[in-house]
Amino acid sequence: MDAEDRLRPEFVDRVLDAVADGDDETARELVEPLHPADVADLIELAARDEREGLVRALAGIVDADVVAEMNEHVREALLDALEPQQVADLAGQLDTDDAVAIIEDLEEDEQRAVLRAMEPDDRAAIEEALTYPEESAGRLMQRDLIAVPEHWNVGQVIDYLRSGKDLAEDFWEVFVVDPGHHPVGTCKLSSILRAPRKMPVSDIMFEEQTLIPVDMDQEDVALRFQKYALVSAAVTDGTGRLVGMITVDDIVHIIQEEASEDALLLSGVGEGDINEPVTESYRARVRWLVANLLTALVTAFVIANFEGLIERFAILVALGPMVAGVGGNAGTQTLAVTVRAIATNQLTGSNRWRAVGREVRVALLNGLTIACLIGAGVAIVFGLIFHDPLALPLGAVIAAAMLTNIIVAGCAGVMVPLTLERAGADPAVASSVFVTMVTDSVGYFAVLGLAAAFLHIA
Amino acid sequence: MDAEDRLRPEFVDRVLDAVADGDDETARELVEPLHPADVADLIELAARDEREGLVRALAGIVDADVVAEMNEHVREALLDALEPQQVADLAGQLDTDDAVAIIEDLEEDEQRAVLRAMEPDDRAAIEEALTYPEESAGRLMQRDLIAVPEHWNVGQVIDYLRSGKDLAEDFWEVFVVDPGHHPVGTCKLSSILRAPRKMPVSDIMFEEQTLIPVDMDQEDVALRFQKYALVSAAVTDGTGRLVGMITVDDIVHIIQEEASEDALLLSGVGEGDINEPVTESYRARVRWLVANLLTALVTAFVIANFEGLIERFAILVALGPMVAGVGGNAGTQTLAVTVRAIATNQLTGSNRWRAVGREVRVALLNGLTIACLIGAGVAIVFGLIFHDPLALPLGAVIAAAMLTNIIVAGCAGVMVPLTLERAGADPAVASSVFVTMVTDSVGYFAVLGLAAAFLHIA
Repeated sequence: MDAEDRLRPEFVDRVLDAVADGDDETARELVEPLHPADVADLIELAARDEREGLVRALAGIVDADVVAEMNEHVREALLDALEPQQVADLAGQLDTDDAVAIIEDLEEDEQRAVLRAMEPDDRAAIEEALTYPEESAGRLMQRDLIAVPEHWNVGQVIDYLRSGKDLAEDFWEVFVVDPGHHPVGTCKLSSILRAPRKMPVSDIMFEEQTLIPVDMDQEDVALRFQKYALVSAAVTDGTGRLVGMITVDDIVHIIQEEASEDALLLSGVGEGDINEPVTESYRARVRWLVANLLTALVTAFVIANFEGLIERFAILVALGPMVAGVGGNAGTQTLAVTVRAIATNQLTGSNRWRAVGREVRVALLNGLTIACLIGAGVAIVFGLIFHDPLALPLGAVIAAAMLTNIIVAGCAGVMVPLTLERAGADPAVASSVFVTMVTDSVGYFAVLGLAAAFLHIA
Repeated sequence: MDAEDRLRPEFVDRVLDAVADGDDETARELVEPLHPADVADLIELAARDEREGLVRALAGIVDADVVAEMNEHVREALLDALEPQQVADLAGQLDTDDAVAIIEDLEEDEQRAVLRAMEPDDRAAIEEALTYPEESAGRLMQRDLIAVPEHWNVGQVIDYLRSGKDLAEDFWEVFVVDPGHHPVGTCKLSSILRAPRKMPVSDIMFEEQTLIPVDMDQEDVALRFQKYALVSAAVTDGTGRLVGMITVDDIVHIIQEEASEDALLLSGVGEGDINEPVTESYRARVRWLVANLLTALVTAFVIANFEGLIERFAILVALGPMVAGVGGNAGTQTLAVTVRAIATNQLTGSNRWRAVGREVRVALLNGLTIACLIGAGVAIVFGLIFHDPLALPLGAVIAAAMLTNIIVAGCAGVMVPLTLERAGADPAVASSVFVTMVTDSVGYFAVLGLAAAFLHIA
């Protein structure tokens, strides 16, 4: 294990070499002390065709917990090789939420076969979870939780916890419910431990609880956990009854996923994951490249209109990509900030126009800086070195084009995602294609159009 | 509050209007029921010049918890208006970690004035935390924690918790230590609650604990919490003694920040935040635009070398940006996936070359698709519509250039961040400038170079 909790390549090689030599004993001795999350990492780090042999050599060590920690693409490939009964046994050892995560990714007929092979209790719990929409609180929640009536005192709660064998193992808060099983408060375990036995739970519970509706999207659940620093939260159905609990350890990977999803979506790679099969990556990415190709046509048409000009001033062609490229970069910057601000709920109807104004001012500053640099550079190079009489007007044209394009890029970078969001679309998904199209075509149009208008006069 | 936990614009306006009318009473009535995190949001959503009045109207409601939840740029502006004594009073009401977060951002002389105004105990704790490097575990940890000797039983732990007044309020696990104060195990509160009073704590503690060294970088702390699904963890100093505790609620915002940081870095906006002052945003962004400008020079030189060719085939100029642009897009896709895989520790020395091979294969597929599309399109448009005798060779040249550039983009997109990471640099920071330079210049070079080589023969 290196300083950043990654398995060292030498360790991975030693395990894989042992398996390749048929020396399962050594492989098992090496892997035995690892945490399930590290065993899952090890399997992911092995090449695709080494994985099956590795899992066979580590039979018993690769248990349900390891499977739950695995990357979904790697897991899918491994589960495909198992009988439904074996998958059902694995799922039966897990909490509802982890079992659902494994089973929801299976093909429909396989899913049915696995469910049939499960214990009736587990099966009912998973089937119910699958009735909730994908990526909703209902799929994330555990059904095992501790709920106590509000008239109990601390002593009764402790005795109940000590007596029960079938009770949940992992919990950080106890939920207090009314006779209709509606949550009325939450007790931290630390408060229960610190209060005298006679204290009524209603005296130590927090009444201001954060309840999660069962159909809430997981991204919103993650934001709510983050905003209110929750450790666990009660999940309620449409009638307000307590149906489950979500704990923070189920949510940290969603916070991470949702936060980095935007970067991937902005780049047009879908859910981009290095374990995704090549053909899936191809399908996800090629769509955006085709879209990019079509939008680049706009630029090509713009340039084609200036054919005569280009033949006389080939230098404009050399400078066009600079104006378009820097503009595109400026647009992407604004886009990245805006999409993140929308995703983290920092940018709402309240400050929309202020944000636009802010980006325009940044763009003006950036634009003036870059325009001066390129304008002066062009004027100096062509004037002092090539003694071109058009050096000054050429510099002015390029500077004006650059300023225009950076301001347009700033406006597009903030307006496009805001508009998409208001229209109900995910601003991270399509914004960059629009913005690049705008900056490319405006960039070339500004260079060539301004040159056509002013260089004839000069 | 809308469905996504954001304050509705109408609500924000009503509060701000009340403050503007001098009707503090109404404003206070509206804001009183809000969670501190929502009060902080309200202040962030107000315009810069409305904030001071709003905070004055809400005196007493804007307490230390609200200040701790605030965006750092907004907080800094508010704290600047306060006396050191007032800042010291605010910090004194917070846990060490939150107080450190407020004080570490102050100017050095202001920091000293605030520390002088604090209670000696709080001051010592904060001064010690400030001796640890920025963004390290030492700055994140709380010093209030529950540690018990290993020979105690469950009853003794409960009695200790019930007796102590000065004990920590918020904790989820109890740490078991040896006489030298080295952690030997961790007890979940749920295990303590469920065990009989006579059970020794050493029987219910987990010995396999995840310890955090006090100088560990916060990004690694966040990854470790995420990987091992931790709720809290003991922090140890160089000699292995227990010095503090980090809880998951202190870490979720770091997971979120670190995950979205990459998207911002990739776009060249630094820490990009919509509350950052315009001049800071300008400074962070203009550097990358200048770098982008310099790298675009490479492309300009490439094009300038083909001046003669361009004057005869202006159409090549129209197609050049398409090849460069789509290549750039493909490079960014690979980059986004690679940077994320490195950041989440999915990509290590073990699978480096496999990842390169994988990206090259995806690039080959993408390249063939896009090359066929553009090649056929060019051949059809110029052959059937303009009856240009060079339609077929022109299509072939553009197709070959596109395929070349997409494959080069795939290689650069994975090799550049891997190389930067091996060299000890952050792959998210500088990768995209390199990759864009490669795809732009290779794109134009391929179009113009292939045209020069083959269109004369045809």
